[in-house]
Amino acid sequence: MSLEKFFDPASVAIVGASQNAGKVGYEVLTNMIAAGFKGKIYPVNNKTETIEGLKCYPDLESIGQAPDLVIIIVPAKIVPAIMQQCAKIKVKSVIIITAGFKEVGQEGQKLEQEVVQIARRAGIRVIGPNCLGLIAPKKRLNASFGGGLPKEGVIGYLSQSGALLAAILDIANTYGIGFSKLVSIGNKADIDELDLIESFGQDDETRVIAGYLESITNGNDFMRLAERISQDKPILLMKSGSTGAGAKAASSHTGSLVGSETAYEAVFSRAGIVRCSSIKRQFDFAQAFASQPLPAGDRVAVITNAGGPGIVAADAIEQHGLVFAALTDETIKKLTRMLPPAANVNNPIDVLGDALADRYKLAIDTVIEDPNVDIILVLLTPQAMTDSVATAEVVAKACQERGNKPVFASFLGAAKISRAVEILRGSGVPQYDSPENAVLTIKAMVDYVRWRQRPKRVVKLFPVNRRKVETIIEKHLRQDIREVGEMESKEILEAYGIVTPKGTIATTAEQAASIAGQLGYPVVMKIWSPDILHKSDVGGVKVGLRNSQEVMDAFDLMMYRIPKKMPDADILGVLVQEMCSGGKEVILGMNRDPHFGPLMMFGMGGTMVEVLKDVSFYLAPLTAEEAKQMLINTRTYKMLQGVRGEQGVDIDAIAEGLQRLSQLVTEFPQIQEMDINPYVVGAEGKTPIAVDARISVEKV
Amino acid sequence: MSLEKFFDPASVAIVGASQNAGKVGYEVLTNMIAAGFKGKIYPVNNKTETIEGLKCYPDLESIGQAPDLVIIIVPAKIVPAIMQQCAKIKVKSVIIITAGFKEVGQEGQKLEQEVVQIARRAGIRVIGPNCLGLIAPKKRLNASFGGGLPKEGVIGYLSQSGALLAAILDIANTYGIGFSKLVSIGNKADIDELDLIESFGQDDETRVIAGYLESITNGNDFMRLAERISQDKPILLMKSGSTGAGAKAASSHTGSLVGSETAYEAVFSRAGIVRCSSIKRQFDFAQAFASQPLPAGDRVAVITNAGGPGIVAADAIEQHGLVFAALTDETIKKLTRMLPPAANVNNPIDVLGDALADRYKLAIDTVIEDPNVDIILVLLTPQAMTDSVATAEVVAKACQERGNKPVFASFLGAAKISRAVEILRGSGVPQYDSPENAVLTIKAMVDYVRWRQRPKRVVKLFPVNRRKVETIIEKHLRQDIREVGEMESKEILEAYGIVTPKGTIATTAEQAASIAGQLGYPVVMKIWSPDILHKSDVGGVKVGLRNSQEVMDAFDLMMYRIPKKMPDADILGVLVQEMCSGGKEVILGMNRDPHFGPLMMFGMGGTMVEVLKDVSFYLAPLTAEEAKQMLINTRTYKMLQGVRGEQGVDIDAIAEGLQRLSQLVTEFPQIQEMDINPYVVGAEGKTPIAVDARISVEKV
Repeated sequence: MSLEKFFDPASVAIVGASQNAGKVGYEVLTNMIAAGFKGKIYPVNNKTETIEGLKCYPDLESIGQAPDLVIIIVPAKIVPAIMQQCAKIKVKSVIIITAGFKEVGQEGQKLEQEVVQIARRAGIRVIGPNCLGLIAPKKRLNASFGGGLPKEGVIGYLSQSGALLAAILDIANTYGIGFSKLVSIGNKADIDELDLIESFGQDDETRVIAGYLESITNGNDFMRLAERISQDKPILLMKSGSTGAGAKAASSHTGSLVGSETAYEAVFSRAGIVRCSSIKRQFDFAQAFASQPLPAGDRVAVITNAGGPGIVAADAIEQHGLVFAALTDETIKKLTRMLPPAANVNNPIDVLGDALADRYKLAIDTVIEDPNVDIILVLLTPQAMTDSVATAEVVAKACQERGNKPVFASFLGAAKISRAVEILRGSGVPQYDSPENAVLTIKAMVDYVRWRQRPKRVVKLFPVNRRKVETIIEKHLRQDIREVGEMESKEILEAYGIVTPKGTIATTAEQAASIAGQLGYPVVMKIWSPDILHKSDVGGVKVGLRNSQEVMDAFDLMMYRIPKKMPDADILGVLVQEMCSGGKEVILGMNRDPHFGPLMMFGMGGTMVEVLKDVSFYLAPLTAEEAKQMLINTRTYKMLQGVRGEQGVDIDAIAEGLQRLSQLVTEFPQIQEMDINPYVVGAEGKTPIAVDARISVEKV
Repeated sequence: MSLEKFFDPASVAIVGASQNAGKVGYEVLTNMIAAGFKGKIYPVNNKTETIEGLKCYPDLESIGQAPDLVIIIVPAKIVPAIMQQCAKIKVKSVIIITAGFKEVGQEGQKLEQEVVQIARRAGIRVIGPNCLGLIAPKKRLNASFGGGLPKEGVIGYLSQSGALLAAILDIANTYGIGFSKLVSIGNKADIDELDLIESFGQDDETRVIAGYLESITNGNDFMRLAERISQDKPILLMKSGSTGAGAKAASSHTGSLVGSETAYEAVFSRAGIVRCSSIKRQFDFAQAFASQPLPAGDRVAVITNAGGPGIVAADAIEQHGLVFAALTDETIKKLTRMLPPAANVNNPIDVLGDALADRYKLAIDTVIEDPNVDIILVLLTPQAMTDSVATAEVVAKACQERGNKPVFASFLGAAKISRAVEILRGSGVPQYDSPENAVLTIKAMVDYVRWRQRPKRVVKLFPVNRRKVETIIEKHLRQDIREVGEMESKEILEAYGIVTPKGTIATTAEQAASIAGQLGYPVVMKIWSPDILHKSDVGGVKVGLRNSQEVMDAFDLMMYRIPKKMPDADILGVLVQEMCSGGKEVILGMNRDPHFGPLMMFGMGGTMVEVLKDVSFYLAPLTAEEAKQMLINTRTYKMLQGVRGEQGVDIDAIAEGLQRLSQLVTEFPQIQEMDINPYVVGAEGKTPIAVDARISVEKV
């Protein structure tokens, strides 16, 4: 559904308009008038005839027609009645600024539900309650009490915090930053971040989407929508607060490694969302995305009039994994010819402390033509000879004339460069208060470009035995058993093409020795009990047993010792299993996030996983590229490739294991968490084996 | 030596003073006059009678007495002659602003040496050349061309980049930030960071030392001095550029893991230096250190008029490892009584969007008395009802009246809070443009306090066989052999009380079997060659050999295969060694930094060390606490304590190994780099064994 009438109404009614300065109903009305709104404004107030020269209406009905947009500022208890009136006269778009709903507890929650019910039934869309309102500068619409109308621009902003929006508006109005739309989404009773991102996505005025969120209502839909829209328009988000999902689930390795931020990180990286750590950083990023072309690569050339800031920029470029551009011989020759002998003609290009604007111009014009340069960063410190204003004009001109490469400025100082900074901002050159902040912004743009150029997502579907898994899971859920035992966990894995070691359960020492004889030595033995999750913690795992005597000894020792440690555990026997040796141990896992679904994990395996925390996460379902990228994102990856003369392992086989697991947890939402640890992988062509696995299920 | 005459001269001569605006000689003179300097100013210029109303002198001698301070601004070539004149009339303090020395190449370098020689001989101290000059606001001394005189304050600033200092001065003068002294150190021909930090350390006017450095001239002295001075006054440094030491040495594991920043990180953490990543951050930190008492602990209380920024602050507090203060019942009761019912009386305390200054005052006054609170952070967003100016006054008053707890402010916005921000700044309340930046500053202060409270450093000296090591090292150096072989490396370790495995070199398969028989199976075999550094890379290591047949096979295979892979290697035999199993493998190492001396390393051992990079560094000599802290700083530490039912290892024994190694490399500066990998450690009471070691030496 389009939100068009919110942003471009022909008529606006303000229910609760007030003539008393300081009241919100007065602020909104006067903001509407001051902004120069071209449509009709209907103040609704039954206690006075006119406010600020506008005729007042005692109620909505008396207006005689349905306004395109109604703003409600009456006390919370009266809001449902006003909503009923809106329904009656067929209003379709309402902003409820009034607070005192969900945010104040149960009673408010009930009131909010009532409002939503009325709206749903009547087909009314609602922004709020408990919000600041919205602003659309091009339509001169300021339906808010957040502050004065900002400049027109290309940034669409949504905020879950009204107070932060007020601060943002103040900053924007002070520095002349423009917006296409600003919306305070308040309690998100109806319209939420999903609706607004979709609306901004379709909006021709909006080229950059930015926002502040504390929660995400519908995780999966949000991710899919953001992924689609990021392809066209960058989405820059500040996200505070945490999911709390990590704390909940901790019975698996994977669960204990999921942090409160893991899911968001995974979602943001999947959806190409540019995460901002503060409002300041968001503005830093937004001004670049709003004004500059996307860079074709990651090679940065720096032009400076002083060595110090040049070094600082070079350090930052290296630290953030960008490339310090190697200038072509032609560029170096040109610069040598044109700049004074003492100038540094290599990157960072130092035009020297006495450089005037002309020298900057020569350098910029030359470097911008260099095919080895993707991005230009111009630094200036206000020295005795420096003409910062003329230099700003040169930078602005270069930026306008050569539209294909992004240009960034970092003029350092304050009063001495303030006029220059105004010129830069006014001409759409992003200006940063430090070289580091410029480089961080460049990094954000380069990352976004890389994301846009990622290969198309194709999730492979493997032929599997789905019926088998269904049977096992249903049996567990019927009996209300959450943890699937090791034997059946492995049956589930086998059904999805993940190979597990051969083995059988023994109930006597002699039987154990006989099974081992059939499997061939060495063997592994594991205590077999539904009540023992961490077998090695109680001495329930023995590896490398070489003969029948060792097997029988191990059996008897477990039977003697473990019941003492865990008297209540139901011990069913001991699993005697072939030993998988000579490979590397990794872990594959999944933890289901309540908002975003299955989070896949990969990392170094064994008992070290929780110590080293060398793991990576990604959302299922995985493509082959994503599965492989999960491997690459760990330090373990280098080890898997083979170090110090060791042979590497079959990387693609691990990636396939991850994809198969991804398919399993996607097809069975009942699986809440699971891990395979260790997953023993060998050289290319050798089938990896899931030596141990843990699966827990829940009704959905 | 005191630099007193630089900062408080009774008379200043300006050699090269000029009457032409735009010239540096004019800028310096007019800056001197404009600042209102109370002493005598002697312009030296033989082409004119007066400049700006001051009588000119044709040369220094004609002044008739030695000025306390001489500023030189003549062309570089003439500078030695002026220095000679200074020597003649017994000038003791000179600032050479002129550029064209070391920074322009060999010729300039020679000129600079000449200047230094004259200075040394005559006992003249020199700041510069190639600098901006110096400023001492309290004495109204502006001997620079950097900008106008800043306010008096408590920050002493030194900068290796004149241009950055000019930018800093501009920012400081715009926002009213005060300084005790500012010095541009230029090429540091004589006076360097060491002199200035020492001088600022003794200076009563200076309470906070800050600076920007690109290089550190005398690493070891710098560290010792900074460590001593940090105990009294915080040192806030921006450091750009890298040592390049890491790249040089890469033949050992340790060498390959030393980054260009490792040594600086180690030095800064040892010396308690607060590192700043940008000028902006340095100002953020400096204003807090300059105006606030040090916090007694790390418990932060947040007071806000909006939920959003409160959450942002809470996230940052958690992320940076600070504690979100748990308010006492008494505080909560008081707040409940005094604040409106909708207010949140738990941390973060939300005084609500309509809060005026009085409500902030109630909250601050209550929280500041809470014994569970060490630090107070006050947030404000400019909402419709907000009175930011009155609130700023309340915060400033609270800050002044209760001097024992630090108070921080983050008022968000721009024009709407600009007057409030002026009030905060003017009253010495540190104000931040985002809650994150406030929290980062709090973190820097808390870390500094923790550093100040560290235990006294006591380095234990073990009884060792120093003579033995001397002999081995001298032999190598005489023969010009840099890599000490494994056998002699182990002799060195044994001489310092580090135990190595028993073993002997075999030159035939039969001899190998016989040695193995004496040691007892299983054994390890290693190819023995001075030319093979990474034995496992060429298949030169076999472990777990269980009988004489396996030993003879291994011997013959090495002899057959390795010469094919490395035809030029001189193979001396195969080392047959007892096998150390059942322990954990760690690495102990050292890489000698050219500026700061021996950098000790600890980490997880084996072939994985370079993959996992789970290592920590610290400067030798190590105390017992520092050695143990090195262990704690790795993720490996948890593994060493024992995970999943495994027994832990002897932590103190590893720490002792590190201390012994630290003693070795401290007593033998010839040792350039070394590592013990693996160092196999077992349960408490079991002696760790250095299974493999590599030492390289150099003449010093």
